[in-house]
Formats: sequence, structure tokens, C-alpha cells
Amino acid sequence: MTTTTSEQQAVPSYVQGSWWTPQAVPTSAPEVRDASTGEVLGRVSTEGLELAEVVRYGRQTGQRNLADLTFHQRALKLKELAQFLNARREELYEISAKTGATKIDNLVDIDGGIGVLFTFGSKGRRELPNSNVVIDGPLEVLSRDGSFIGEHIYTRIPGVAVQINAFNFPVWGMLEKFAPAFLAGVPSIVKPATPTGYLTEAMVRLMIDSGILPEGSLQLISGSARTLLDELDYRDLVAFTGSASTAKLLKDHPQVVYGGVRFTAETDSLNAAILGPDAGPDTPEFEAFVRSVVTEMTVKAGQKCTSIRRTIVPNALKQDVIAAISARLNEKVVLGDPRAEGVTMGALASLEQLADVRSAVQAMLDAGGELAYGTLDAPSVTRRDGSIGEAAEGAFMSPVLLSWADASSQQVHSLEAFGPVSSVIGYDSLDEAIALAALGSGSLVASVCSNDPLVVQQLVTGIAAHHGRVLVLNREDARSSTGHGAPVPHLVHGGPGRAGGGEELGGIRSVYHHMQRTALQGSPNMLTAVTGVWHPGADRHFDDTHPFRKSLAELRIGDAFGSELREVSLQDVTDFANSTGDTFYAHTNQEAAAANPFFPGIVAHGYLLLSWAAGLFVEPAPGPVLANYGLENLRFITPLAAGDSFRVTLTAKQITPREDQDYGEVCWDAILHNQHDEIVATYDVLTLVAKTQDPVADASNASLQG
Amino acid sequence: MTTTTSEQQAVPSYVQGSWWTPQAVPTSAPEVRDASTGEVLGRVSTEGLELAEVVRYGRQTGQRNLADLTFHQRALKLKELAQFLNARREELYEISAKTGATKIDNLVDIDGGIGVLFTFGSKGRRELPNSNVVIDGPLEVLSRDGSFIGEHIYTRIPGVAVQINAFNFPVWGMLEKFAPAFLAGVPSIVKPATPTGYLTEAMVRLMIDSGILPEGSLQLISGSARTLLDELDYRDLVAFTGSASTAKLLKDHPQVVYGGVRFTAETDSLNAAILGPDAGPDTPEFEAFVRSVVTEMTVKAGQKCTSIRRTIVPNALKQDVIAAISARLNEKVVLGDPRAEGVTMGALASLEQLADVRSAVQAMLDAGGELAYGTLDAPSVTRRDGSIGEAAEGAFMSPVLLSWADASSQQVHSLEAFGPVSSVIGYDSLDEAIALAALGSGSLVASVCSNDPLVVQQLVTGIAAHHGRVLVLNREDARSSTGHGAPVPHLVHGGPGRAGGGEELGGIRSVYHHMQRTALQGSPNMLTAVTGVWHPGADRHFDDTHPFRKSLAELRIGDAFGSELREVSLQDVTDFANSTGDTFYAHTNQEAAAANPFFPGIVAHGYLLLSWAAGLFVEPAPGPVLANYGLENLRFITPLAAGDSFRVTLTAKQITPREDQDYGEVCWDAILHNQHDEIVATYDVLTLVAKTQDPVADASNASLQG
Repeated sequence: MTTTTSEQQAVPSYVQGSWWTPQAVPTSAPEVRDASTGEVLGRVSTEGLELAEVVRYGRQTGQRNLADLTFHQRALKLKELAQFLNARREELYEISAKTGATKIDNLVDIDGGIGVLFTFGSKGRRELPNSNVVIDGPLEVLSRDGSFIGEHIYTRIPGVAVQINAFNFPVWGMLEKFAPAFLAGVPSIVKPATPTGYLTEAMVRLMIDSGILPEGSLQLISGSARTLLDELDYRDLVAFTGSASTAKLLKDHPQVVYGGVRFTAETDSLNAAILGPDAGPDTPEFEAFVRSVVTEMTVKAGQKCTSIRRTIVPNALKQDVIAAISARLNEKVVLGDPRAEGVTMGALASLEQLADVRSAVQAMLDAGGELAYGTLDAPSVTRRDGSIGEAAEGAFMSPVLLSWADASSQQVHSLEAFGPVSSVIGYDSLDEAIALAALGSGSLVASVCSNDPLVVQQLVTGIAAHHGRVLVLNREDARSSTGHGAPVPHLVHGGPGRAGGGEELGGIRSVYHHMQRTALQGSPNMLTAVTGVWHPGADRHFDDTHPFRKSLAELRIGDAFGSELREVSLQDVTDFANSTGDTFYAHTNQEAAAANPFFPGIVAHGYLLLSWAAGLFVEPAPGPVLANYGLENLRFITPLAAGDSFRVTLTAKQITPREDQDYGEVCWDAILHNQHDEIVATYDVLTLVAKTQDPVADASNASLQG
Repeated sequence: MTTTTSEQQAVPSYVQGSWWTPQAVPTSAPEVRDASTGEVLGRVSTEGLELAEVVRYGRQTGQRNLADLTFHQRALKLKELAQFLNARREELYEISAKTGATKIDNLVDIDGGIGVLFTFGSKGRRELPNSNVVIDGPLEVLSRDGSFIGEHIYTRIPGVAVQINAFNFPVWGMLEKFAPAFLAGVPSIVKPATPTGYLTEAMVRLMIDSGILPEGSLQLISGSARTLLDELDYRDLVAFTGSASTAKLLKDHPQVVYGGVRFTAETDSLNAAILGPDAGPDTPEFEAFVRSVVTEMTVKAGQKCTSIRRTIVPNALKQDVIAAISARLNEKVVLGDPRAEGVTMGALASLEQLADVRSAVQAMLDAGGELAYGTLDAPSVTRRDGSIGEAAEGAFMSPVLLSWADASSQQVHSLEAFGPVSSVIGYDSLDEAIALAALGSGSLVASVCSNDPLVVQQLVTGIAAHHGRVLVLNREDARSSTGHGAPVPHLVHGGPGRAGGGEELGGIRSVYHHMQRTALQGSPNMLTAVTGVWHPGADRHFDDTHPFRKSLAELRIGDAFGSELREVSLQDVTDFANSTGDTFYAHTNQEAAAANPFFPGIVAHGYLLLSWAAGLFVEPAPGPVLANYGLENLRFITPLAAGDSFRVTLTAKQITPREDQDYGEVCWDAILHNQHDEIVATYDVLTLVAKTQDPVADASNASLQG
């Protein structure tokens, strides 16, 4: 094998704790070029890289170092990393321009990627416990006496997360997979796509240089990793984004079929936008629809797996739609080198991409699509130096809008041109629109543009099961919407069928994709031991110190307080009714109350019970408990008749210290019993408690919402 | 192809609304025999059955008829079906005995299967809305002004659920897959295993005869369905239970790899039971461990995918464990025809199974396992007529316990004898026990027997990610536990790696496996329109009638009530503190309150706000609102200082009529604002409301818990 000279440097990998390049780059290694100028930027090669060692390093060093951190500590690192990268975006923009990306494209890829880190940095600390085990769903009582109970827990998978990314989002694509894996405590091995992997490499370099990430939590393979899957087993996960054909190759790999590797795919799909019959040319919905189609055709030069490929419009509005889209394309699109002034749409990522897209469009024309806007000829563009003309060395292509007479033509629903290309088809009834959307055989996203709630209800419930995401655009959200093409970290990204059948993002759901859900059965004490959360039926510890006098440093799960009984007289109920104004008949009228199927006669207000319970368990003097910021899961079980008594038992259930505050959250199990030891009510009391007995001085960030 | 005579009747299929048998049964069609006597019971054949039509019928007729019902209506049908079948168990027991099943085995398979219907009949009405769309997880606010929001919804998949079952649980295996599919609204196509499919057929016949199920919701294919997967696509789901090798064949099917068919597998695995170092021979944990191992070896003659195949015990206790298990096997096991008196362990399902198990045991002996109990020779059994001796025509096998000197021998962790066979291996440290359990490469279930919370915590968190279920057995739950081998409908069944990588049951989770999760974005009004649940920011309807005066028949989502402002004076706060006893310093001591980082000075009790809010929104006279049975998601946002005022707005958020009651549940969105229109608190009020203005007379089933 011949090797290259220095001008064709290999893009480095980061493996086993250090940067790596092949000792000699084979001349057969793929070249990487600037999308607009064709300038050679380097080669990629993994010649000589031991992939088995990369996997082993992740499983051992990565797993070990990540195990030292809780969810909150990892989330805080994501936030710090986001801040670090946010201050260094300019360096990345410069490199990104070589991929054909405009300033707006950078907002999506680079700023969007950093935004994912911020979101998980925040969600991880708000929605996960400050530990390493998550309880999923409700407790199930499995024996009559409550001695045998069950629930589900999540613990991280014991392997690595291999992340195979597409060329179109070299930064966002990496970070949207890395963030949830990191938060779950699973080491990432990133494999970017060749044409734009040098931008991913630049980002990984910044991330490593930040010093924020524990060693082994992130490795990068720049170049071919064909045999990587051979090294994986059921402990590991592969998250793939890219073409449907590559996804199928991976899904058919023996270690996926036989070896139990967890596999998820997100592939581009024939996404639809449906215009409602109510959304005529003068409506805000029509305008929003046209803007959205043009945006999706031109951002990233249409190289987005979420782009609108099929616009499904009322036949009566079809010509209006075509005219309006064409007019807006004429008005808004300036094609050229992203580094030149005024350019709004850049090149495709490579000449290979350009050839693919052109040939897909040609196939669609052959199948009955008619050219309603644009051309397959080489377009005139703004060159890097500002001059205007053809640029054969750049991967430039004009936006293309196709119109189809036959809306159910198989090709419009199956052929994808992964560039600035969209098709217009018509429908006559809502049922037909739903059926046409479904012909995409599963898509990432669809838009529904309508201001009629009934139309929206019918269209959305009709198409939902074929889609991973549905966006409803109307006059109310046309300005505030994040758009058809933009996955947000809070919501799932992925879709059934052609879209790959996988699911990414979706907030904490994506963290759970990196964890194993396990049903756990046992006694309350043992489930308490495993989860660190007190379970009803487990031992309580009553001691001389009221638990409200204990700081987080002193408080233990199961520490409890039990009150005396307090009687509630008819006069108390009457007084409470009068002072609060809550004179509901069940508290004021014996005869009417007794006629209610749930009450024996006059009963105490539920809110009286809550208020008095607080009076029974409170410690009045200043101490570590700072505030009661909320309450959950309140159920009134047995009504308390006037003249009955009740007592309250309070037990420390879950303790969540805040990493960056002098306090944390304590959730208390509260249970009210009457004088017959029947359960009157159960609920969780949410409090903020100081970490030590010292007063919490600085509360500039303090919020009652925890 | 030659055909058979009438004495070899084919087991019927139920397809496209009627019973079907081949016009002529080929002589090559597999024979089915009584497990104990070898008597031929019939043949199975699908010669001439059009599988494409079966799928089409499910997708069309089944989907259409199930769409007419809500979750609650389907759940009620499951309950009715369970009651119908429960009264007819005896018929099934008789047929079940032919499969080799004892009375105890019937409890697991038949009663257990009916129990699954009861559980989903109940859970479906308690945990799902009375509609066809489920909201999953929290609302995400995606724009600053709240006009653009997102959340996730579940809608049923638009195809069929193909359920391929194993021979060992012909009834439970079918029902545990059918129940969640039916509840989701997805038509089932059941494909039982040949050796015991006649029992499944008998059960399906009862289910169809009940007249309870909508036509098309259940079809049965008795016999080969090799080409069934060719007919499926991304709209459909295949749930498989059986051998790992068959699972792999299916997972590798082009329609799974390329066609997007949703596929889940549950395969038998090398399940472990770990005895803690604290659990010496005189402890209740040791006894529970031995009982559990013997139960798992003998119930269903060990033909359970959840059976304990590996007992992992402290080396110091290994001989004690072997001695105790052997003694209990001697004491408890009477092998024979289940129809004979006194028999406690029946035959394997077929002579083929017997040959498989014997050969697996032989391979384990060859690999270093030593026979600690039992024999591979033909055992002496109790025959149907009560006589004792060999029964070569029956698939009988003695329980076999193997002891391994080398705990990390590859074969003890990979070879499975799917019969009354278990192995004993020893460990020295907890880390070693964890590593040994993981050598099973992913299992359905493991038991941990220990009464030491630290041992349990370490073992369970160490092995959880390799298991679908972990049972902790100790003195507290030894008697009440449902046992190692028994999946319960409330908890997931399935496991990673060798166990198939799938997930079944787990309560409502299994319903969601039959639905597509879709991210939904739009304005609050549009999300309200799609889900039927009012979303914050959506329109409210204030009219002259207080919403508490409206019955379920009159109340609409968004119907609202807004109160006047009410001032809370310092005296009010003091009075509330005195009457409730809640004299926390934030309500009684100006200086101390001001020193608290969250409060401006003395503030009103949160419980005062709740109580007064009820006074502001209540309608005192008897009416459709029967009771306030709970409260959810309460958060105090802005403290209300003494002297401030607040008002409450109440909005009908979700309406859930009960199918079998004269009332239903209404969840109200409550929001408190102060005089500056800042949000003081938010919560959901849960009430029971009558369906009409008539009084609710019969409330014999009434419960405050809804």
C-alpha cells in the first residue's frame, strides 16, 4: 500500500486517552474537499487502529470514571461544557463554512448542538435524582400484606455507545447523541461521516481540551470503522443516523441480529407538509406553509433528513401554492459560497452528493414529476470572491420544485432527492390527505397547517402513528414555532418504518435509551436499600431529634416523625368553613352530606386536614428546613367525620442535594390515620432543606421551584 | 401430496371471522401427542390458508371494530372476558393435562393467563384515559410567550400484532400478549407452538364463543405460518416467545431488517439465583433459596424460560446447598401422569423435548458438570392408572442437579437444558458473584437471597443491567413472594442479550408497545384539540353557569371559573397559624421570615392559600360535583406576603367518565394569581362528578379513589 505526503494529512482520531493518526496514510484513503471551492482539505484513514482496544477502553476506563459521578454531577459538566464551547463558536464557524454551511446553517448545527448540551445540563438536574438509579413508574403492591412489592429501575448499560453520524450535521449530530449517553453514564465512541468529519474533529478537540470530561467518556474515530460492530455485544448500543441503505446493513450485522447489540436508526424520510382546506391564499396559515416549505428547501441546501419532500395541498389550492413558493424562492435565495456577502443558500456537501441529488430528480421527472421551479443545469452562483457565475468545482444546485398530476404515484412517495428539492401533490378529502401522508411508509416529521381544530384533530390523529413528530402550524404559533425541520432536545427525533424505527432525544427518554429497565421485586426494606428511596412499609427511624431539625448532612432516608392524635370537632369544621369560605354542603349540612354517596355525614375539609397536619408536624423555629415548595400525589382515602381524630406520620423519602446550591430537596412521605388507624390521606410533601446547620446566606439563585 | 383420514383431524384455525381447517390434511403435517401416554391427538396444518388475507382482515376489520371502542371500553371487555373464562376453567384443565401439566402447572398457565386479563381490565380503566389518545410525559414550553408548546402522544399502530408463542405456556403465553394488544386497539393474530396448540385452540374457542370480542380483534393460526412475516410491514408488530435460534431467524427476516416490522423477542436464558454470604444454612434466606430452586426445577417440569439454571452460592456453602436441594427433591417430587393421584411433576411436552434435554445435560456432563442429583436413565413414574414403573411412551425425566468445580466454565453459562435441570457454582466475593451472573450474557430474571441491605444493594445494582427482572428474597417476603419464575402482569417480562432483548407486560408499558409515540408541537389550542385535554394557554370558556353546576353530560373541556381577588391580612395569617397549629416562623416572625432566602417577610401559609382558593371557587349547594378526592402537581411559585391579595382560576382540564358508574372524574387546572397578576401557585384538583343532574343513588362500588 502506498502512502501519502504531508500535504494530505489525516484527520486525527481521539482514542484511549490520546490523539491518534495513522503512521502512514494510504493513497486509497478518501479525500475531503471544501464544498464550494473543491480545495483538498485532507484524508481520513484508520489504518492500523485497533478497534477492539477502543471498545475495551470505553467499557473499562470510561465506565469506571463515569461511575464516579451522579446524574447531577454529569449534568453540571454538560452545562460547563456548553458554556466553554459557547465562548468558542467563532473558531467552529470558520471551519464549518468549508462544508458549505451558511451562517443560518451554523445556527442550526453548531449553536443547536451546544443548545442540546445546555438542555440536558438543565433537565438532568431537574428531572433525574442525584444518584445513579432511577425509579420508573408506579410502585406495584404484589401481596395483600404489602410485604412483597415491585417497581422498575433504570441502571446504565454496562458497555459503550457507538454513535455513527451523518455528514449533514457534523456538530449537532454528534452532540445530540453524546449528551444523553454521557448523562446516563455511558462512554461514547463517535464515528462521524467522512465529508464533514474534520468539523466534528475540531469540536471534539475543544471538548477534550476543556478538561471537563472524565477520561474515556468520549472517543472519536475519524475514518472507516467497518469492523467496529464485530467488537460489540448486548452490553453496547449503536445509534446510527444516515441513509436507509446503510442502516439496513448495520441492522443486518450478526452482532445486532445474534449478538444482542442495541441498535437504533434515524434515517431520512419523505416528510410531508399538509395544507388544510381552510388555509386559502389569504390566510396566515397559507403564508406560514409557504415560508416553511421554502425554509426546508434551502436551509443546509435541503440536506436535512427532516426536510419537507412532499407538500400535500387541496387540489383547489395547488396552483396557488406553486406560485407562492416560486415567488418566495425568487425573492429569498442567493446561492453561493457561504463566505461571500449576501449568500443565503450554500453548496451541497460534496460533488458526489450533487450527482446523487441530480440523478434522483431526473428519476422523479421520468416518473411523472413536472419541473415547476428551478433547473438541473449548473446554476449561476456568488463565488467566494463575490464574482457571479458558474462554479463547476463547487457542489451547487438550484432549488427545484416538482408538481405531480398523479398524487398517488409510487415514486413521489419513495424517491428522495437529498437536496433543495420538494414535490407538490393534491388531495380532495381529509381521508385522502391522510392516506397520501401514510404512503411515505413512515416519516420523521409532518406538518399540518390549519386553523380549524376539527381538521387538525382529524389529520393529526390520522397520521400520528406513521410519524415520529407532527407540527401543527397556525396563526397562533407561526412566529414562535421552532419550525418543521428542527428537532428540539425536549422531543423525540426519529420515526417508524422508512425513518429507521428509532427514537433519539425526547428529553430524559434519551437517557433511558442508554439504560436497562429492570423489574425489581422484594420487601419494602430491600427496595429501599437498592434505590436509596424510602418505600411505604419499610422501617422508619423515630429518634429524639425532629427530622426537620436535621440538615441534609444529618438526615437519613427513613427518619420519621409521628404526631399525637388531634380531634376535629363539628365546631372546627364550621369555623374552617366560615374562615376559608369553603361552605360546600358536605361540611355544613348534615342531611345533604349524608345523601352524598361518599360521605357518612358532615366531614372535615380535605384542606383542613392538610393544614392541621402541617400544624402537627411542623417545627416552628428557624432550622434547616427552608420552605415547603409543593405537594404531590395527594389522595383522600377515608373521610374524617366531625368528631373523629387524626394523626400524621412524616418520613424522609428522598433526598436530593443540589450540586451548585447550599440546599437541596427533601421529599417526605405523609400519611394521615384516624383514631381507628384507617388511612385518611396520603401525599408527598416537597421541601427545601439546607445542607448544613449554617444559615443559607446566598440565595441569589434560589427559587421556590427547586 | 397424500392426505389423511378422519382420525387425524387438524386443529382448527380461526381466521376472517370463522373457523377453518384444511380441506385435506397432508400426511406430512406434524402429529400432536399426549405428553404422558403418547396417544395421537391430531395434526396441524395450514395447507391452503391465505396468510395475506388474514393480515388484511386484521388491518381492516379488526382495526375498524377496535377503533369504535375507547381504552376503558376495551378494558371492561377484558374484565368481562376474564369472568367468562374463569367460570370455564375446568374444561381447560382437562385438556391441559394432556400436555403433561399438573394442577399447579394449570394454576400458572390457565389461572395465570386469566389473571392477566383481570389485571389489564383493571389497569386500563385506572391508568389510561377514557379515549384513544394518551399523553406521555410532561408538557414542554418551547417559546417564551407560551404560544408554541410540545408534548408526546401515543396512538395505536395501524397494523396487526402477530404473536408467536412457545409450547410451554399455551394459555398464559397467548393471553399475556393478547391483553395489551387488545387494550391498545390492535388486532391480534395468534400463532401457538405445535405441541400444545390444541389447548390454545380450546381457549380461543371459548373467547370467540363468549361473544365479547369485536370481530377481527383475534385470529388464530394453528399450524405453520412460515410466510406470515412476508405479509407484514412497519405498521405491524411481531412478538415472539421461544428459542433463541428461532428468534434470530425471525429477527433476520427481510421484513424485519428492511421492512420496518416492529419485532420483540423473549427467549429462554440462563437465569441465576445468588445466595448471599450472610445466608447460612440456619437462616430463613437459605431455606427460601432452596425452596425456590426446587420449585423452579419442577414446576412445568422445568420447562420455563424463567427457571433457575445457575445457582451461584458462596463456596463455603456449596455442599450445604446441594445437600438441601437434594433432600427437598427427594421429599417433594412425585413424577408421573398429571391425571394420577399424588403426582407433583409431570412429563416434558414431547419425546422430542426429552431427547433435547437429555442431550444438553450430556453435553454439560462432558464439559465438567458433575451429577449431584438425579439420573439420565428413564425414571420410574406413576402411570395414569396409578401403577408405578417405566413409561417409555411418555416424556418423563428425573430432576437433575449438576455441580461444577470451575464456576467460570463457559458451558455452565451457555448450555441450557430446557427441563428439570439446574447447576450449582461457587463464588468467593460479591464482585465474583456479579461477574458470574453476567456470564449468562443477559437473562430474564435473577434472584438475590440475602437479608443484608448492603449485600442486596451491591448485588442488585451490579447485575440489574444484565437482567429484565431481579427478585430479592429474604425473610420478609419469602412467604408472600410470587416467586422467581413467575412474571407478573404489573412488571416487565423480557431481558437483554440472550433473553431476546425484548420487553413484554409491565402494566400499561405493554399497551404502549402497541402504540407509536409521536412528538406533537403546536399552539395550546391545537394540542387541546388533538388530545381532548385542556392545555395551559388554550382558550377558556367563562359563562353564566358555574362549571361545578354542570354534569359530565354538560361540562366541556375549557369551561372555567374565575374568582374575585381576596386579601390576606397579617391577622388572617396569625389566625390560621393559631387554629391549625402551623406556627412556622415564616408565618409568625417577621425578622426570622425575612432572613429566609425565599421569603420577603411574613407570608401566608401555602395551605391557607389552598383552603381559601377552595372557598373562592366552591359552589356550596348539592350539585353534580360529588367530592374532591385528591390533588396533583402543586407548586408554590411566588410567596404571598401578608397584605397581598390573590384570586383563583379553575378550568376543566380532563374529563373521564367511568363506564360502569353514574359518575366520572374531572381534573381541573387551578392557578392562583396575586394582585400583580404574578403566579402564586398551580395545581390540579381531582373531583368526582355525576354524569347527569340526577342524584347518584347507587354508590355501592363508590370509592373516593375513583
